[in-house]
Amino acid sequence: MSLMLQEIRQQPEALERTLREERPKVAALGRFLAERDIRLVVLVARGSSDNAALFGRYLIEITSNIPVSLAAPSVYTLYRAKLDLRNALVVGISQSGEGSDINQVLKDAKHSGACTLGITNEPRSAMAQLVDELLLLRAGKERSVAATKTYTGQLLMFYLLAAALRQGRSLDRLSQLPELASQCLKLEPAIQDLVERYRFIDHCLVVGRGLIYTNVFELAIKLMETCYVVSERFSSADFLHGPVAMIEADFPVIVFAPPGKTFKEMRRLARRLRARRAECLAISSEASILELATRAVQIPVKVDEFLAPIPYIIPGQLFAARLAEVKGLSPDRPRSLRKITKTL
Amino acid sequence: MSLMLQEIRQQPEALERTLREERPKVAALGRFLAERDIRLVVLVARGSSDNAALFGRYLIEITSNIPVSLAAPSVYTLYRAKLDLRNALVVGISQSGEGSDINQVLKDAKHSGACTLGITNEPRSAMAQLVDELLLLRAGKERSVAATKTYTGQLLMFYLLAAALRQGRSLDRLSQLPELASQCLKLEPAIQDLVERYRFIDHCLVVGRGLIYTNVFELAIKLMETCYVVSERFSSADFLHGPVAMIEADFPVIVFAPPGKTFKEMRRLARRLRARRAECLAISSEASILELATRAVQIPVKVDEFLAPIPYIIPGQLFAARLAEVKGLSPDRPRSLRKITKTL
Repeated sequence: MSLMLQEIRQQPEALERTLREERPKVAALGRFLAERDIRLVVLVARGSSDNAALFGRYLIEITSNIPVSLAAPSVYTLYRAKLDLRNALVVGISQSGEGSDINQVLKDAKHSGACTLGITNEPRSAMAQLVDELLLLRAGKERSVAATKTYTGQLLMFYLLAAALRQGRSLDRLSQLPELASQCLKLEPAIQDLVERYRFIDHCLVVGRGLIYTNVFELAIKLMETCYVVSERFSSADFLHGPVAMIEADFPVIVFAPPGKTFKEMRRLARRLRARRAECLAISSEASILELATRAVQIPVKVDEFLAPIPYIIPGQLFAARLAEVKGLSPDRPRSLRKITKTL
Repeated sequence: MSLMLQEIRQQPEALERTLREERPKVAALGRFLAERDIRLVVLVARGSSDNAALFGRYLIEITSNIPVSLAAPSVYTLYRAKLDLRNALVVGISQSGEGSDINQVLKDAKHSGACTLGITNEPRSAMAQLVDELLLLRAGKERSVAATKTYTGQLLMFYLLAAALRQGRSLDRLSQLPELASQCLKLEPAIQDLVERYRFIDHCLVVGRGLIYTNVFELAIKLMETCYVVSERFSSADFLHGPVAMIEADFPVIVFAPPGKTFKEMRRLARRLRARRAECLAISSEASILELATRAVQIPVKVDEFLAPIPYIIPGQLFAARLAEVKGLSPDRPRSLRKITKTL
């Protein structure tokens, strides 16, 4: 069995462990941040960690009303800009904690007067040493090149950070997450059957919006790196500003549609795709969208968009890992990739 | 001749006119912003305007040291978050000035205590009426669905805004832009010959980084909406975190490589693409990268990355407009698109 598949299956346990160990930090972190009067949050990451950061941006802005900026690391590393970061919290997100450009941004930010927070899976990493505050994933060593359990671990950390920023409002719902992940792992046999259909797929489009948008990017990157499928990613809103033109009969589109604020729009989109005879794969708990799609991944529990990103990415991860196998590829050994990417 | 091609050709004149009319506003705008002690700039846009905003983010952060956030409009419109925007400048960018979600964000921002600025081509639009300050493109009515002259006009406006934020440091170099655009329009016959080769292209990847990154998104969206080519867009840095795996022999890659901070990295990438026998089309003034590529678009003047986005997008626009024709499509009538897109 591939490492990727093994690590996908470890997620309920990893989430449980991380929640148990890190949740007690939230109150102290909340006090630390309140004292510093944080008025801007800057998130710095690359790859899958940057996809998780996209979730952080929505969650923090929606729940704490503090504006968030997703950093462009080259502004710091190539152009050597010295941003005015008073009252800013700069958060670095990196599985390994060794992304040299991310760590450079954190160092610069510290010199510019910002507080810094690290989110990593490696307690002895360079990142863990240099930040003011640390949220530490307890996912266990990630050996597959394709990140899975660290991605969901990073999403979990953003719930904790958002709670700290609003000074500890109830975290109770988070304890459902490991069980929700377990439920979704039960989709594996169904997905193993499903991927046969996609053996010869070479391009696709992944769509979603709002809190679940993170998964659009994450599924697309998984399909690119493990299956070599050219995967476009768009929010449904941006998609209608141009890219919709390229959709024709048989064009494969994957739609994330949890119940919530974006659901109606996703259903409209599914209807439009159907009229165009595109091939739509819907991921949802809701029959009213699944019945519009060509193929359906039915999420076995009804979970609203606030908690949806972690359970909903699991069928996506399984889809990529199993599709790679069906295509005769090893998801653990993508061409040209190593686990730690150095960017200058 | 398509409207798109006509409007591409109007750019030197449109830039000249806009610069003449709007440049005198910079000093007063600078004073207005200085009085308000701006500590955060939020850019709100969709589609091509959002691509221009990506340039604004790099330029403003690099030249003024003020952090920039590219807004997620749904945070305001769907989730009804009330962000704390004291000392923030919120900039709406819209060709038509009628994007209802963009205007909603501007209204909300005003209520949250932000200054607002509009960048639009339509003086009588809803956006023009509701903002505190206005930078008005003088591109003339844009009739093609695919934005061209308003995209370069928006880039120009970001130079003016960045100058205002650093209180009027020299704007002299900007007067070269109309002439640089003219020079690049002379590439049209060469590009008309070149596109024949790409008649059957159905997917590609566009790469660049830093100040020119805006053009990566803009060329990709043009290829998607006018030629129905599935076009991935990545910064070279993010590209190496995963998507590089999908590059195989014959994979078409378009690289923007102006002289500047990102040039060396682009040359390394071109070398890597060559080793993988990918098909690389390089857009650059520099022989040292053009000679590594399968096909070259030689920018006829050496212009560094600071001024490069406007002249460098012109061969990209010509490529999309001419390729659409070679594919038997009308670039003015993309499937499923109208000029103004309403998002809720």
